[in-house]
Amino acid sequence: MADPWKECMDHCLEVTKQAGKMIRDALQKDIAIMQKSSPVDLVTETDLKVEQLIISSIRKKYTTHSFIGEESVAAGAPSILTDNPTWIIDPIDGTTNFNINARFTSTSFLCSLNQIEFGIVYSCQEDKLYTARKGNGAFCNGEPIKVSGQEDITKSLVLTEMGLKKDPEHFKTMMSNIETILTIPVHGIRSPGSAAVNMCLVACGAADAYYHMGIHCWDMAGGAVIVKEAGGVIMDISGGPFDLMSRRLIIASSRTIADHLTQVIKEFPVGRDDSEG
Amino acid sequence: MADPWKECMDHCLEVTKQAGKMIRDALQKDIAIMQKSSPVDLVTETDLKVEQLIISSIRKKYTTHSFIGEESVAAGAPSILTDNPTWIIDPIDGTTNFNINARFTSTSFLCSLNQIEFGIVYSCQEDKLYTARKGNGAFCNGEPIKVSGQEDITKSLVLTEMGLKKDPEHFKTMMSNIETILTIPVHGIRSPGSAAVNMCLVACGAADAYYHMGIHCWDMAGGAVIVKEAGGVIMDISGGPFDLMSRRLIIASSRTIADHLTQVIKEFPVGRDDSEG
Repeated sequence: MADPWKECMDHCLEVTKQAGKMIRDALQKDIAIMQKSSPVDLVTETDLKVEQLIISSIRKKYTTHSFIGEESVAAGAPSILTDNPTWIIDPIDGTTNFNINARFTSTSFLCSLNQIEFGIVYSCQEDKLYTARKGNGAFCNGEPIKVSGQEDITKSLVLTEMGLKKDPEHFKTMMSNIETILTIPVHGIRSPGSAAVNMCLVACGAADAYYHMGIHCWDMAGGAVIVKEAGGVIMDISGGPFDLMSRRLIIASSRTIADHLTQVIKEFPVGRDDSEG
Repeated sequence: MADPWKECMDHCLEVTKQAGKMIRDALQKDIAIMQKSSPVDLVTETDLKVEQLIISSIRKKYTTHSFIGEESVAAGAPSILTDNPTWIIDPIDGTTNFNINARFTSTSFLCSLNQIEFGIVYSCQEDKLYTARKGNGAFCNGEPIKVSGQEDITKSLVLTEMGLKKDPEHFKTMMSNIETILTIPVHGIRSPGSAAVNMCLVACGAADAYYHMGIHCWDMAGGAVIVKEAGGVIMDISGGPFDLMSRRLIIASSRTIADHLTQVIKEFPVGRDDSEG
């Protein structure tokens, strides 16, 4: 049987490469000119162009498909997965991460029947294109990738997010989780910044685990299939099954490390992406 | 007058490029082979080869120069700067940072009369070669770089180190500093991992500040001249002048941000690189 999603993925890959070129060209503009203008303007201008390129190109080809994205959600649309093939696209992740010489990332994924069919994460500045198609393995620039397989948490490098929370109690819990994990002890904790890239770092064995509460579906859908196909473990922060709309995530190089993390990480409420309003 | 250090820098650049190729070649080995063997063995083997390449090549050409490095210090040599031209070399930084698909960095610098004459930081995986010669500006892959110039700490991205300390009180202070800075609030805190690369991220405007207690001279000497030449501010964590052997550092895109950080960061003792024994 022909793979119904292969053509979609190939089309999406082609557009992602064009988007990457657009972003790199913008970044390679004369640095003097970039520094005279506002970095925010540069990011906004590039973000809009890339979004237009990716989303309009996919919409034109797949007219019946649904879309979930940061932009549509900001405009009031709910993020609800249906049986209809649904694209979850984040044209530029990391716009608020680094400044003008930023680590931009494009991410795109296609879900159907609540299954993630494929995922693409493009780390533009490094020129690393991570891809995975359900059941067909994970790749970085065409080369197969695998998780480290690390089982010993004391030798593991753990990635996390570190940000101010509106609720002081949530903030306290976030800081206390970092402290708890550092004192296991693990080999190290890092916070490089982009959720999608963090997931790919685990997928390719550069780190051993990543956890996050407050992440969005468009930050993690692409990485989720890449991690799974690279042999990684993905679950909810509670230890239950991974839920794309839950805004919570643990991924790891092994079940042992994932289980250890679920046992020590304290939860704070983060809502769901598919809750109404 | 001819620049007495230009030839040294050119020689060092040439060797750094060769070292970078060696590291990238090692990383591009068949991933399957790499995953069968121990990552630690691969790192050790590459580390030794690169060290041999860089240090022996410089030693051969500049027979009267002195050296300070992680390896010699581990062998009991004191890190004391004299009037003799002294190379501070860290062939591979970040060996314990990431795993096999690591973010390796080569750093090399030359000091003379306690002045840092030039600095080279090579971020191998990204293929970014940061260079600066005292009084001649800072560059990344030959293009001039500048700090962001950000003055507003609430819009700043701050980089730091996040690790377990032997002394629980020091650990508590480190965590409390992160909390204090997040609640200023700043735009964000990140912990990408490699000290040398963190400094270059500030130098090129990708981040606005970086502070660290417990860093070594070989982690910061190259970055120090790169940050200065990129227009950045560099000082001791107390607000006093930068001291290469102090193991303490604040760098920032502006004096305003550096001053703010020195006022809120609490110190813990870290010793000095040039203390005997």
